[in-house]
Amino acid sequence: MGKRVALVLAGCGVFDGSEIHEASAALVHLSRGGAEVKIFAPNIEQRDVVDHLKGSPTGEKRNVLVESARLARGNIQDLAELKVSEFNAVIFPGGFGVAKNLCSWAVDGKNCTINEHVNSTLQAFHSAKKPIGLCCISPVLAAKVFPGCEVTVGQDKNVDGRFPDAETASAIAELGCKHVCKDVSESHVDKANKIVTTCAFMCKAPLHEIFDGIGTMIEEVLKLA
Amino acid sequence: MGKRVALVLAGCGVFDGSEIHEASAALVHLSRGGAEVKIFAPNIEQRDVVDHLKGSPTGEKRNVLVESARLARGNIQDLAELKVSEFNAVIFPGGFGVAKNLCSWAVDGKNCTINEHVNSTLQAFHSAKKPIGLCCISPVLAAKVFPGCEVTVGQDKNVDGRFPDAETASAIAELGCKHVCKDVSESHVDKANKIVTTCAFMCKAPLHEIFDGIGTMIEEVLKLA
Repeated sequence: MGKRVALVLAGCGVFDGSEIHEASAALVHLSRGGAEVKIFAPNIEQRDVVDHLKGSPTGEKRNVLVESARLARGNIQDLAELKVSEFNAVIFPGGFGVAKNLCSWAVDGKNCTINEHVNSTLQAFHSAKKPIGLCCISPVLAAKVFPGCEVTVGQDKNVDGRFPDAETASAIAELGCKHVCKDVSESHVDKANKIVTTCAFMCKAPLHEIFDGIGTMIEEVLKLA
Repeated sequence: MGKRVALVLAGCGVFDGSEIHEASAALVHLSRGGAEVKIFAPNIEQRDVVDHLKGSPTGEKRNVLVESARLARGNIQDLAELKVSEFNAVIFPGGFGVAKNLCSWAVDGKNCTINEHVNSTLQAFHSAKKPIGLCCISPVLAAKVFPGCEVTVGQDKNVDGRFPDAETASAIAELGCKHVCKDVSESHVDKANKIVTTCAFMCKAPLHEIFDGIGTMIEEVLKLA
């Protein structure tokens, strides 16, 4: 019997929603691992809508659940309806939408607030000792909600120019968490907290290396589930 | 030296744009194959905008190039600027956006018209004997533009309920083309025309099988390039 896994989205598009290739990679690896997946997103307005061609806000209004449905091919539910008892694990792909819609990291950094349903979801899986997988910027959710946990967002220095957002590692340390340096092909497993993280697009790497790194995260989550 | 490949998008989301997982899978396989990829989309208004949660049109207006930029992480160009001399091959992922924005198949079936830049792109690669890879519904573009060519959109009967759109195969035959039945894990190579096709989401299959099928299409395209 396959593991039942919830995947939480934050919109559809790297600059204002979920990073599309991270979400798709997670779903491919979950499918290969025989998991039964349900997809969720909060039913809230996006913080902003970014024209991904120009890189600037458009002033439009879009809903996180409705846009996330593009990635889910329509098969998605309001995050408020997620029942932890129905799942063995939860996955959060990355993208700026995580830092804009699931929490306020993009604006407030380590002083961010977390969306109430995201917070209750994380707390519920953690309390039930069910694994939580996060990639890219999503590990900041765990760092904020579970002080003392261990996560990776890649490297804490901009090694070879491949980690332009390396200062995120310092912010995680300031939250009282341990940042563990890992390359794009690797995941870090915090066994005590059952939190599995990989840096994905926090590293400038070829897409297939990011895809494979997310594969290691999903594999570790399914092992713990 | 890696092959230079153009990938043409039709928006971002299965019901009014490019099928996201097909586009992402193609990019992962191209990356693993060492290809140097540039992404293009026509700079036109979408035929419609579909609320992917409800499955119904919203009445909004969105631009195909701007929405495709979500899949391209901003790194995309107007299809009108594509120079065939700069590439060894071209790839068209599927999704309803192909049948709505790149041509009018969704409305007109085999009597459809083809977007002028899509048509000139296909003609240019074909004339230069450079391979064309298409998946899902995109093979209808080749069937319309190159009468007599061979393509697959999966099966011509709804085998085991896995091919609900099997009648597409008949429409391809009516265009004077040869439909070749293939399963989701396979591609068909029309060697004379250098056209490689795979059915992807035309088959109801687990996502990793669709991912792998697209992998065979990319592999054959890179071999021919």
